[in-house]
Amino acid sequence: MTRIITIGREIGSGGRTIGRKLAEKLGIAYYDQEVISEIAKSTAQSQLYVKNVMASRLESLFPIHIMTSFADPNEELNQTIFAAQRDVMREMALMSDCVIVGRCADHVLKDLNPFRVFIYADEESKIARSRAAGYTKGTDKELKAELNKIDKNKAKFYNFYTGQKWGAMENYDVCINATGKELDDIAEGLAKLFR
Amino acid sequence: MTRIITIGREIGSGGRTIGRKLAEKLGIAYYDQEVISEIAKSTAQSQLYVKNVMASRLESLFPIHIMTSFADPNEELNQTIFAAQRDVMREMALMSDCVIVGRCADHVLKDLNPFRVFIYADEESKIARSRAAGYTKGTDKELKAELNKIDKNKAKFYNFYTGQKWGAMENYDVCINATGKELDDIAEGLAKLFR
Repeated sequence: MTRIITIGREIGSGGRTIGRKLAEKLGIAYYDQEVISEIAKSTAQSQLYVKNVMASRLESLFPIHIMTSFADPNEELNQTIFAAQRDVMREMALMSDCVIVGRCADHVLKDLNPFRVFIYADEESKIARSRAAGYTKGTDKELKAELNKIDKNKAKFYNFYTGQKWGAMENYDVCINATGKELDDIAEGLAKLFR
Repeated sequence: MTRIITIGREIGSGGRTIGRKLAEKLGIAYYDQEVISEIAKSTAQSQLYVKNVMASRLESLFPIHIMTSFADPNEELNQTIFAAQRDVMREMALMSDCVIVGRCADHVLKDLNPFRVFIYADEESKIARSRAAGYTKGTDKELKAELNKIDKNKAKFYNFYTGQKWGAMENYDVCINATGKELDDIAEGLAKLFR
């Protein structure tokens, strides 16, 4: 069986960078939303998945009362896309050891017994990291609001798909506060905890 | 400046054992409630502390409206004891690098910038660890209620003294779920994160 690390994170906490570094240190594959959606788009395999999902699986994925409550067709599309990504993710996870950032991976891959990490940080630190990463738009106050909004959406998405509470300690094996820490040190520590 | 690791933990999670192992691995001192209260009792130094605290410091430690709300004289004694332990803890922490389990150490020693750890686990695992540690009394259901009660009291104590929420992620640098893990592996990982 492959060994999988999933990373949930607050936006701006450095969680994605930690994921990359961790995969590098362990010499295993790294996937995040970008990579997964790229794969889901570009492989013939995934085309098939998307078709399958569109044709037959959507109803079985969600209870009827939820299905009918979606007036927004974009919502249905989002669900279809997510279902396809989910299948891709699963395939990748079965193929080799890997680190997966985001995409509710901790829950989607639950039966594969992943090592579930959550990275968080205080607001000041998240703003500073976003700025250092090249996000120059707006005042710090605006950026703070923007980051909060993104996390709120992430939480909503996660809570809806998993029936769990995003960022609640009991759903993770390790939660790390990245405030004032070197991301490389965190990755190193996680590698140690994972081994 | 000394480097300090504080460990808060749910009862039965294995946090104390992890603390001991971690101190051993790092070759630094280890303190917990037992050790600290022993020191506070047996050294002349601490006798003086207790006297001082009793005589003059109690009022300054707590706002008047809180003080006057204590009808129970045991509560006052508890506060005095805790204040003495707090001073002992501080003295120890300034003397050498150390791991301190419990006693609101994360908050009491905040200005010394401790590495703040919280250890938790699911209920099944906490019951199993308590049994393995030799706690044979009662049914598992009774033990579960007992563990919950202890943690509730710990939380109450912590919240009262620190004005923070016990076990809330943002008050810690690392939170580790000990469910299904080897305590030695967790200690090893923490040593790595701390270095």
